[in-house]
Amino acid sequence: MHFVGRSWLLLTGFILFYVIYLLFGALVFSSIERPMEDRMRTELEVLKQEFLNLSCVSDAALERFLLKVLAANKYGVSVLRNASTTSNWDLASSMFFANTLVTTVGYGHTTPLSDTGKAFSILYALIGVPFTMLVLTACVQRIMFPLVLAPVGLLQRSGLEPRPATIVHFLLLLILVVMCFFVAPAAVFSAVELSWSFLDGIYFCFISLCTIGLGDFVPGTQPNQQYRSLYQVAVMGECSC
Amino acid sequence: MHFVGRSWLLLTGFILFYVIYLLFGALVFSSIERPMEDRMRTELEVLKQEFLNLSCVSDAALERFLLKVLAANKYGVSVLRNASTTSNWDLASSMFFANTLVTTVGYGHTTPLSDTGKAFSILYALIGVPFTMLVLTACVQRIMFPLVLAPVGLLQRSGLEPRPATIVHFLLLLILVVMCFFVAPAAVFSAVELSWSFLDGIYFCFISLCTIGLGDFVPGTQPNQQYRSLYQVAVMGECSC
Repeated sequence: MHFVGRSWLLLTGFILFYVIYLLFGALVFSSIERPMEDRMRTELEVLKQEFLNLSCVSDAALERFLLKVLAANKYGVSVLRNASTTSNWDLASSMFFANTLVTTVGYGHTTPLSDTGKAFSILYALIGVPFTMLVLTACVQRIMFPLVLAPVGLLQRSGLEPRPATIVHFLLLLILVVMCFFVAPAAVFSAVELSWSFLDGIYFCFISLCTIGLGDFVPGTQPNQQYRSLYQVAVMGECSC
Repeated sequence: MHFVGRSWLLLTGFILFYVIYLLFGALVFSSIERPMEDRMRTELEVLKQEFLNLSCVSDAALERFLLKVLAANKYGVSVLRNASTTSNWDLASSMFFANTLVTTVGYGHTTPLSDTGKAFSILYALIGVPFTMLVLTACVQRIMFPLVLAPVGLLQRSGLEPRPATIVHFLLLLILVVMCFFVAPAAVFSAVELSWSFLDGIYFCFISLCTIGLGDFVPGTQPNQQYRSLYQVAVMGECSC
């Protein structure tokens, strides 16, 4: 009974700490982002007023027009001249979308427009998500020996004690992972994507690999990008890991 | 050696099937969504032309204006008059965002605007995601007895054999989960959110609980919604499960 009581107490502590952690995050995000948002909102308001002053468009007509523009934009359909040449639902983009579904990344830069598409997304993910986990687990089991067991054995044979060997191996693996999954892709993204900084690349890799997938940065969505399909398939590889 | 060979063959089969599954999904999504997208694009083009014909705005000026409107919209800042009263970074919304980070749902309806916000998001998720998994695991361990072991025992004591008892229990639990996490919330969402159908509600619940989080449907983002903060905290509860 004493053990059960302590166990409940621990769980309550965990949940309490979780709520505090969320509150702490909320306060930090709010203090960092709100001034930026306010500035952006004011700038946009000024821009809208300038646009209205310079033209003979009525406020109501512009509002109606923008309402439809933003509604379409939510589904990845852009009103801009440059953006209109590429489809979000060609084969490569659809495969990219299917991949973000089954890996649970879900950027949401394109989303199903139709009810059929939504229903199919549910069915597709229902089978695809567990299957992807299965494939990833099978892959991890495969690379356990060459990436973990073999190097640790090698380090031990070269004279290191088991504990230092594990630490050295962990550090080497950490460097390898950071280089392969963060630094190198971020360098590529900041070179290929015109508006991305190196931090944007790192941020995209992290948000994708954690399967958070906010979708504020999605590679291969610039208009008239060369080898777009090939590039999207390459990014899919990164996301699947 | 024979076992290792078969194991590699199985993995190759898995990966091949994974690629085929993605291709199949891509073909279905493309065939369902592309006509819808084309229609939406044509409608938007017509709307833009009508807007230009009815007003004295030049095409280039409108394009410049829309470019900025859509860029701001990407960060959750809307140009619309109705939307401008509520902030995406008040305490409740920031907590909602923090929750979507640590649960890896990541709707992306609001995203960090500043570099500081992006860097903090990485740090926050780096600690928050494993901690959330820990809390959820602890919660699951707690509810294992009342939700699984106790009912199965009860069914067995009431005369059922172990296997039928497990099947009956599985079906009852499935109904309970579908009712509590899909049907009931979807009914609430379709009542509270003006533009949501029941399917939209089910779709939102599924996409959230799988942590895909596309962000095409996010509760509590309508302008002037009553008890918005309270509602967002309630939705957070659903997402955390």
